[in-house]
Amino acid sequence: MSVDQLKTQIQNLQDELNRIKRNVSSEVVVTRDKIESMSSEVTDSNPYSRLMALQRMGIVNNYDRIRQRSVAIVGVGGVGSVTADMLTRCGIGKLILFDYDKVELANMNRLFFTPDQAGLSKVDAAAKTLNFINPDVEILTNNYNITTMEFFVHFVHAIQTGGVEEGKPVDLVLSCVDNFEARMAINTACNELSLNWIESGVSENAVSGHIQFIRPGETACFACAPPLVVAENIDEKTLKREGVCAASLPTTMGIVAGMLVQNTLKYLLNFGTVSDYLGYNALIDFFPKMILKPNPTCDDRYCIERQKDFSKRPKKEHSEVVVEKDEPIHEENLYGIVLVEENEADKSASIDSCNPISVGLKQVFETPSAAPHSITPVVNNDDVSLDDLMAQMKAM
Amino acid sequence: MSVDQLKTQIQNLQDELNRIKRNVSSEVVVTRDKIESMSSEVTDSNPYSRLMALQRMGIVNNYDRIRQRSVAIVGVGGVGSVTADMLTRCGIGKLILFDYDKVELANMNRLFFTPDQAGLSKVDAAAKTLNFINPDVEILTNNYNITTMEFFVHFVHAIQTGGVEEGKPVDLVLSCVDNFEARMAINTACNELSLNWIESGVSENAVSGHIQFIRPGETACFACAPPLVVAENIDEKTLKREGVCAASLPTTMGIVAGMLVQNTLKYLLNFGTVSDYLGYNALIDFFPKMILKPNPTCDDRYCIERQKDFSKRPKKEHSEVVVEKDEPIHEENLYGIVLVEENEADKSASIDSCNPISVGLKQVFETPSAAPHSITPVVNNDDVSLDDLMAQMKAM
Repeated sequence: MSVDQLKTQIQNLQDELNRIKRNVSSEVVVTRDKIESMSSEVTDSNPYSRLMALQRMGIVNNYDRIRQRSVAIVGVGGVGSVTADMLTRCGIGKLILFDYDKVELANMNRLFFTPDQAGLSKVDAAAKTLNFINPDVEILTNNYNITTMEFFVHFVHAIQTGGVEEGKPVDLVLSCVDNFEARMAINTACNELSLNWIESGVSENAVSGHIQFIRPGETACFACAPPLVVAENIDEKTLKREGVCAASLPTTMGIVAGMLVQNTLKYLLNFGTVSDYLGYNALIDFFPKMILKPNPTCDDRYCIERQKDFSKRPKKEHSEVVVEKDEPIHEENLYGIVLVEENEADKSASIDSCNPISVGLKQVFETPSAAPHSITPVVNNDDVSLDDLMAQMKAM
Repeated sequence: MSVDQLKTQIQNLQDELNRIKRNVSSEVVVTRDKIESMSSEVTDSNPYSRLMALQRMGIVNNYDRIRQRSVAIVGVGGVGSVTADMLTRCGIGKLILFDYDKVELANMNRLFFTPDQAGLSKVDAAAKTLNFINPDVEILTNNYNITTMEFFVHFVHAIQTGGVEEGKPVDLVLSCVDNFEARMAINTACNELSLNWIESGVSENAVSGHIQFIRPGETACFACAPPLVVAENIDEKTLKREGVCAASLPTTMGIVAGMLVQNTLKYLLNFGTVSDYLGYNALIDFFPKMILKPNPTCDDRYCIERQKDFSKRPKKEHSEVVVEKDEPIHEENLYGIVLVEENEADKSASIDSCNPISVGLKQVFETPSAAPHSITPVVNNDDVSLDDLMAQMKAM
C-alpha cells in the first residue's frame, strides 16, 4: 500500500471515529448546562417554565424555594426510583439515595430502570439517569443496607447532616423500602432526630398501596401501630429458589410514588393539605384517608419523648389540622358525586388473604387472651395531664 | 512519517474505533432478545415474573392474554408518554401512538422524555425508548394531527384495523390529548366505530385531573356533556410569544397515567371494577367518582345510534354495573376511615378560577335564559319504551 493510500485510510478512520464520537456525545453523554436560577420565561428550552407557572396560577408562592430543599429516599426500587425521577424533574435542591440492591431484568415491569442497567447498583444507575435528566440537582448515593449496625450509624449521620445548608438535616425522609426491618430502622432514626418522614408501601399482590406522613410526637410513628403480620427476614434468594416472588405493577407503584411526591411538594412548598394517611385500592379505585394519633404506650422511647415535646407546643396548631380534615365544606351534592365504600374485592386484596399465615410470615404480636389488642389510633385526651398519662403508663 | 509509523497509527485508530463501538453497543444499542411466551419462572432475568405472579396471587386469571391486546394512545405528552411506558412494561401486544408535536426541554418537568430527545418527534422518540425497554411490544407511530380532515380519515382507519389480529379494531383507545378539538375527534371516531375509549385530562393549574371511561351508547360520550368552557384553537406559538403556558407537574400526570393504565388493565384482563369516572384533586387528595349516563338528546348522531343499540341489549348487564358501585358493602367503620368531601381548596382549583373568562377561552354554550342547561348525568327511565323516548326526543 502506498503512503498516500495509508494516509487516506487514516483520514477515513479518523472521520469515522469523529462521527461516532459526535453521535455518542450528542445521544448519550452531553446534556444541558446547569441553570443558575429558575426562570418563568416561556421558551421551548426552559425546563422550569411549567413549574414556575404554578406561581402565576396561584398554587405556590415561591416555587424556586424547592432548590433549598433536601430529601432522603430510602429504597430506590419500583416506588423509590420514580419518586427520585419526579423530584429531580421538579428541580429539588438535593437528593440522597439509599439502596444496596442491583438492577435486574426482573425489575423491568416497573418504571424508570432500563434493560442496559441490569447488574448495576440501583443507586448508581439511578444517579446517572437523574444527573442526565437534570444536572441542577445534587445527587448523593449510599450503596448499603441501613438495617445493619454499621450502616445504620452512617444513615443517621447522613440524614442528620444532609440538608442543602451544610450540617443541617434533610427536610424530609421518604421511605420506599419493601420490608419491616428497614421501616423500623427509619422510624428509630427519625424519632431520635425528630425528623418528619413519609412511609410508603405497595401490597404483595400489587393492587393496593399507601402513604403515611409521620411527624414524631404529633402522629403515630411506625412502632405506635405496627402491622400485625410481617414477612420474616428470610434471604430473598431463598424465596427465589422456591420460585416465589411478589407481584408488582408499574401503575400501582407509579400512583403511590405520585401520591408520595405530591404530598412531599405540598409539605416542602407549603400549599394544599398534606395527607396524614392516604391509601389506594386499585381493584375499586378507592382512596381511604385516616388520621393516626400517636400511641402513648409506644415501645419507642424517642416517640414518647417527641410526644412530650409536642404536647408542650401550643394546642391551636394541633386541633387546626384535625378540624380542617373532618369538616365537610359542601353540604350540597350538585353533581351527584358518589363516595364508594370498600367492597368485597378490597377484602380479598387485604392481608386477610394470607390467613392462615403463609410460609415466611410471622405474628409480630400474639393475640391477647382477654380483649383483642387494639390497633385503632389512640386519641390523646387533652383533659388528662401528661403526668397522669405517664403515671398510667408506668402502672401498665 | 514512515510506512510502519502510518501502519501503527492505523492500528491504533482501529483499536480505538472497536473499543468505542463495543462500548456503544453494550451501553446503548444492544437490548435483550425477544421472549417467545410469558413465563412465571422466578429468575433475575425474567421481565415478566412479577406480572405473571398476579395469577398466583389470584388477581388475574390469564395475564398473558395481554399479548393479544392492542391499544391506541392519542397524545404522547405528559400523560400519554407515561401511559405508553407503563403498558410497554406490562407487555401489551401492540401500541399505536398518535402525536404531531416535538420533544422540548420545556417538557423535562414531566416523566419519560430525556433532554437528548429535544427536537425529535414525540412519537419517534417514544417508540425508540419503548422498543429498547421491551422489544416484545409492537409499536406503530403516526406523526400527524388527527383533527385535520386528511389525517382524521387515516386515524379512523388506523384504530379500526389496528388490532393484534389483522383487520380487527384496537381493543381500546386512550385519549391523552390536551385540547377540546382532539377529544371531539376521538369521540366522533369512537362513536361511529362503536369503540370503547378512556378520556383523560389534567387541569391547566396542574393540581387536578380525571379519567372517564366512554362506552358508546352505554355511558355519556364526550359530546353528551361537554365542558361548558374550553380554550379556543389558538396557535400555541401565539400563546408562548405572550409568555403564557399551562403549569404541569410530573406527580399529577403520573397519577392520572397510573389511573388510566390501571383501569385499562382491569378492562383488558377482566379483573376488579373499571371506574366510569375517576377524578383527582391534588390539593386535598380527593378522588371523586361518578357514573355518567348518555344524553338522549346528544348532538352526535352516532351516539344516538349507539344508545339505540345498547337499549336492545339485555337489561341485566346494564343494572349490574350500577348496583355494584352504589351499594356500600361494609356497614361498620372499624378503623374510623373518614371520607373527605371536596373543600374550598378544591373550588379554587377548578375552572371557576378563570371566571370571568380569561383570554383564549370561549363559552361553548350560551347560558339559557330560563332554567340553566343541566350537565347532570341523564338517567334512562327503563319503564319508558325506546319508541316513547324517540317520540319525546322528536317533540323537543
